[in-house]
Amino acid sequence: MRRKTAGPLTLPPINGPLTADALVFFIRREVERAGFEGVVLGLSGGIDSALVAFLAARAIGPRRVTGLMLPHRISSKGSVADAKMVVRTLGIRSHLLDISAAVDGVERDLMTAPGIHRQGRLGNAMARVRMLALFDHSLAHRAMVLGTSNKSEIALGYATLFGDSASAVNPIGDLYKTDVYVLSRHLGVPRALLDKPPSADLWQGQTDEGEIGFRYADIDPVLHRLLDRRETPAALVARGADPVLVEFLSKKLLTTHYKRKIPVIAKLETRTFGVDFLYAKDILS
Amino acid sequence: MRRKTAGPLTLPPINGPLTADALVFFIRREVERAGFEGVVLGLSGGIDSALVAFLAARAIGPRRVTGLMLPHRISSKGSVADAKMVVRTLGIRSHLLDISAAVDGVERDLMTAPGIHRQGRLGNAMARVRMLALFDHSLAHRAMVLGTSNKSEIALGYATLFGDSASAVNPIGDLYKTDVYVLSRHLGVPRALLDKPPSADLWQGQTDEGEIGFRYADIDPVLHRLLDRRETPAALVARGADPVLVEFLSKKLLTTHYKRKIPVIAKLETRTFGVDFLYAKDILS
Repeated sequence: MRRKTAGPLTLPPINGPLTADALVFFIRREVERAGFEGVVLGLSGGIDSALVAFLAARAIGPRRVTGLMLPHRISSKGSVADAKMVVRTLGIRSHLLDISAAVDGVERDLMTAPGIHRQGRLGNAMARVRMLALFDHSLAHRAMVLGTSNKSEIALGYATLFGDSASAVNPIGDLYKTDVYVLSRHLGVPRALLDKPPSADLWQGQTDEGEIGFRYADIDPVLHRLLDRRETPAALVARGADPVLVEFLSKKLLTTHYKRKIPVIAKLETRTFGVDFLYAKDILS
Repeated sequence: MRRKTAGPLTLPPINGPLTADALVFFIRREVERAGFEGVVLGLSGGIDSALVAFLAARAIGPRRVTGLMLPHRISSKGSVADAKMVVRTLGIRSHLLDISAAVDGVERDLMTAPGIHRQGRLGNAMARVRMLALFDHSLAHRAMVLGTSNKSEIALGYATLFGDSASAVNPIGDLYKTDVYVLSRHLGVPRALLDKPPSADLWQGQTDEGEIGFRYADIDPVLHRLLDRRETPAALVARGADPVLVEFLSKKLLTTHYKRKIPVIAKLETRTFGVDFLYAKDILS
C-alpha cells in the first residue's frame, strides 16, 4: 500500500483509492462472515471515527451503520455538532446518549479514594462507559462494533484498555494518524473535522499532541521505520531522527505492549490461551 | 503438572502442592516486574476468586491483596457472606461497593431498545461495571488486577468480553474447573464455597451447569483431550465420549475464539498489531 523510499524521515504516502477499497472489502467480509446485520461505532466528532463511518457506509450501505454519539458534559461543544455532520453527510442511523449521569454514578458508588489521579480515572471511566454502550447496542441489534483506534495511538498505548481500544474489528488499526488524514480527504470527510487538532476530548483543552509531547508528523515516520521496517533506533538517529523522540517511541512500544494482548495467563498445560493456543483466523469462518 | 493416563475419560489429577507453588511464584514475579504495590481482584463469593485470593495472599502477603465485593441487588444473599469469609480467613483488605445504582444508570441512559435480550444485557452490564471498578482501583492504588476465569470458562467463552474476562494477569486461566476444586481444597478454601453449585450470579437461580447444559465433570476431560492433547473429536467418540458433548465443545471452541484475542485489525502494513507484531513476554520486563 505504501511506496518504499530511502529518503528523509517522512512517512511515504499511502495509495488512497487502493487502501479505501481494501478496507471496504474488509468490513463487508467481516460483517458477513460473523453474521451481523450491521455495524455500530462511537462517533466522537473526531476524524478517526468519521473515517470508519465513511468506510462502513460504503461497505454495507448507510442504513446498516449506526453511530452512537456519547458525549459527557465536559466534552467540547463542537464534538456533537461535528459527529452530527458525519451522520447527515452519510445518511447513517444514530443515537445521542449522554454519559454524564452514568459516569457520575460510577464515581459516586465505585471509586475508592476518588481524589487520587481524579482526571485520569474519570477519563478512563468515560471511555469504558462508552464501550459498555457500544457492546450493549451490539448484542441488542446484532451490530458488529467497529474500532476507531489508529496505528499511532495503538503503538503509543494512547487509549483506555477495555475502553476505546475495545472493539470487535478495527478497520483503521494499521493506518498511522497521518494516513488517516490522507484517506479521509480521499473519501470526502467534512473539512471541519480535518482542520481541528486531534483530541481524546476527556477533559477541557486536552489535545493528543499536547499530552504526548510530540507531533504526529514527527512520530509517524519514526514509528513506521521502527515497526514496519524493523530499523534500529541507532540507525534512525544516524539518519537524522531526533534521538529523544526515537528513545521515547522505542520505550513506549515496550511499556504499553500489555495493552495489545489478552490478559497474561500463568502457563501450566500443553496449550494455554494467548500463549500457544492460536488459530489462524480463516479457520473460524 | 498432570499425569498422563490412557484410561477412561476422566481428568487426570493435578499435583496440588506443585501447582500452588508455581502459581504463587507467578503472581509474585508478575507484581514485581510490573512495579505494582499490590493486587486487586473481584471477590464474588465463588470458588474461583477465592482460590485466586488464597494464592495471592500466599504470594505477596495478605495486606497487599485487596478484594472488591461488588454485589448487585439481584446477587444471591449468600455471595457477600461467602466473600467476607474469604476476607476474614486470609486477613486481606476489602471494600464492599454496591453496583446496583451504576447499572440502573447504564440501563436508563445508555441502552437503546432495553426490552430486547434484557437479562443477558443486564448481566453483561454488571460484569463490565465490575471491570470498571477493578481497573479504577488498579490505577488509584497501583494494584494489579488479577483475573479469576478458569480454563473451562475461557474455553466455553462463558464470560462477558471486556467484563469478567478482563484482567492484567490471570493465575488460574490454565486450570480447569475440576482443578480449581482440587487446588482450593489443598489451600484450605472454606468448605461453604466448595459445596455450592458454580454460578455467575447474574440473575436468580442461574447456575453454570444449568446454563451450559453439561456438567464440568463431563466437560473438563473432553476439553483437556481436545485442547491439551490435540485429540480429534472422532477419536474421543471412539473412546466412549458423548458425541453430543464432543460436538458441542468443538463448536464452542471455534465460535467463541473471538473472545480470546485482541480486536481484529485490517492488515495493510508489514507488521500489524495482533497479527505479526508479537513480542516474547520476557523481552518486556
